[in-house]
Amino acid sequence: MKKHDQDFMKRQNRLTVFEIIKNQRPISRASIAKQTGMSATTVSRIVGELTEEGYIQESEQVSAGLGRKSTLLGLVDGSVLSIGIELDRHAISVGIVDLQGNIVCSEVYSRLSEDSSTDTLERLGSIVLEMLERNAIKRNRVVGIGVGLPGIVNIEKGIVVFSVQLGWKNVRLSERLKELTGFEVAVDNELKVKALAEHLKGAAIGSNRTALIGFGNGVGSALIIEGGIYRGEMNSAGEIGHTTIDPNGMLCECGKPGCLQTYINISSLLSEANKIRPIHTIEELFDAYRVKEPWAVHLIDRALMYMSITVNNVVCMYNPDSVILSGELVDKFPEICSEVKELCSTRLVWEPLRESFSFHRSELNERGVVIGSGLLAQTRFFVLE
Amino acid sequence: MKKHDQDFMKRQNRLTVFEIIKNQRPISRASIAKQTGMSATTVSRIVGELTEEGYIQESEQVSAGLGRKSTLLGLVDGSVLSIGIELDRHAISVGIVDLQGNIVCSEVYSRLSEDSSTDTLERLGSIVLEMLERNAIKRNRVVGIGVGLPGIVNIEKGIVVFSVQLGWKNVRLSERLKELTGFEVAVDNELKVKALAEHLKGAAIGSNRTALIGFGNGVGSALIIEGGIYRGEMNSAGEIGHTTIDPNGMLCECGKPGCLQTYINISSLLSEANKIRPIHTIEELFDAYRVKEPWAVHLIDRALMYMSITVNNVVCMYNPDSVILSGELVDKFPEICSEVKELCSTRLVWEPLRESFSFHRSELNERGVVIGSGLLAQTRFFVLE
Repeated sequence: MKKHDQDFMKRQNRLTVFEIIKNQRPISRASIAKQTGMSATTVSRIVGELTEEGYIQESEQVSAGLGRKSTLLGLVDGSVLSIGIELDRHAISVGIVDLQGNIVCSEVYSRLSEDSSTDTLERLGSIVLEMLERNAIKRNRVVGIGVGLPGIVNIEKGIVVFSVQLGWKNVRLSERLKELTGFEVAVDNELKVKALAEHLKGAAIGSNRTALIGFGNGVGSALIIEGGIYRGEMNSAGEIGHTTIDPNGMLCECGKPGCLQTYINISSLLSEANKIRPIHTIEELFDAYRVKEPWAVHLIDRALMYMSITVNNVVCMYNPDSVILSGELVDKFPEICSEVKELCSTRLVWEPLRESFSFHRSELNERGVVIGSGLLAQTRFFVLE
Repeated sequence: MKKHDQDFMKRQNRLTVFEIIKNQRPISRASIAKQTGMSATTVSRIVGELTEEGYIQESEQVSAGLGRKSTLLGLVDGSVLSIGIELDRHAISVGIVDLQGNIVCSEVYSRLSEDSSTDTLERLGSIVLEMLERNAIKRNRVVGIGVGLPGIVNIEKGIVVFSVQLGWKNVRLSERLKELTGFEVAVDNELKVKALAEHLKGAAIGSNRTALIGFGNGVGSALIIEGGIYRGEMNSAGEIGHTTIDPNGMLCECGKPGCLQTYINISSLLSEANKIRPIHTIEELFDAYRVKEPWAVHLIDRALMYMSITVNNVVCMYNPDSVILSGELVDKFPEICSEVKELCSTRLVWEPLRESFSFHRSELNERGVVIGSGLLAQTRFFVLE
């Protein structure tokens, strides 16, 4: 085994021990060793580190047969908090998240789409520090910051490689935000942390293979396999919005014709609608749809069909046990979910897989990215330390 | 941790120990314990079991500092063989596969597409037993049989749930073939075992995320993530042939319009070609293409475009580090690979991911399924025992 793999295994072991204590507390060292197959020495070393750092404590002693005593381990209450941030073109949401994924407090700030990355990050730094002060939260309780945003993110280096929505390229987000706040910063694609949050706290608790689909300013998907985010080589798995659906179709902003998202995303729908009359918001388009203006019915019905095709294509590729629809369009227009579900169950999903998954609407809605980013920061902390 | 998870961890530990001995022999028990974090007791128990079963042996003693002696472990040569089978509509290929994935000997038999599952399995049973006898291979050296075939397979139960190509539904293949031969039988989808074989022995050695695409009588894909086959909930992940590409497209044999495979698979191509003149084989169609008959150029150029779209869509969904093209069309017509590669690298793959993967042609070609099935049987044996 290579050095790299050994380090990886050590970090994984640390996380495994912490997760077992978190989920099964109170629990003994011996029981942890038995469950994991780790040696008693390994378990004791990890428990020692976590105790010294103030995250776990010995909680009580119980008899373990034949007069021997076994000490049980538990968590130090409120020892772990993190900050979850959702960064989007027009908004910044910030929340303080606890170990159970509850949002302790949160705020939403508007953002101008022309704000530079430098300005945005400085503002983010101030927001975080002010929020901690206002809520009288001690710095040493906060294990780190997590940021979720649309785009391709290098999670190892904490760099936003490419984000059409933010207009960013190669922004060293983690480094800069750490300079500004002093906290470790994890950054990830928004749909990936959202899927993690729905898996841990929302619509897909207990699922082994969760596919989350987002319909909003873009179209994307994310896959959780047995508790972990499937990332792919460049953390770009799930980019279903740029799968080609029609080689003779409309040009996508990426330069390729017929990308799936050109039929679904908000900007494409508005740009099509404006061929008929001035339509400024997606709400106006849905108003026209609801009073059955023919062009709006055509546009939205077509979008619903392509949303159902998105579900089919995700199901064929990932074969998940649960599919969650999310994103601005789904949050704002509940009818989308029922219409897509109907189309999928009657016609548009491949017949052998039609019954193979459960269908959900996002439960965390617009809070998903903040919760997921906060949980990501916690996980990274326990794995990386 | 649940009982189920504990059993799973035990089996995984067994496989881990065996794989380390196989790849790093000669190696000491202490070194295995150090690498894996398993306790010395766990390692010794597993080594004891594997020695008793005749797969590993103590090979030599070396000094391990301060006069202590450490015993190194190795494999018993030729102790493990398995039988790999590829079952297709018109052919049955059978081979004996060793621990390194080499084919010791193999045979191909023709099959009539109207042969029942009962007849096919009885014939398979005789073929296997005769092959062992003819090659003077003792039964106790063979750890099991692996079968790869097109369709949806329940690998836990060894049932062929559904195979359009074979015309089978709910065939209890493993049970029957075990009755006929006495060997344990693992069965799986052909592209999944083929991807495993290319990953272990062929075009994608060392890759962490391999996507294999098959173009032949159907269109499908398979994903290997860090050495393991990604299966999904029903072992159906990768069914890209039934992703919808054009809601107004040709009807697929599955009953859905515009499935990707309708533009690419051999039967669709032949059925289109026969609108012009009688064309009986895919070779005749390519002959017409090579002499530039316009209708054939149209058909094949369209297929090449959709093959490139297949690559794009696989890359967007799985974000692999390697893509392997395989299948009858790719094996027979080498120009397909270069044409698709050219289209992908210039236009048809989403720009941010265009450089993110290496592009390969299958190296094992028509041997891939036999090798992969044989290796699958070996892996299952060491995990399940």
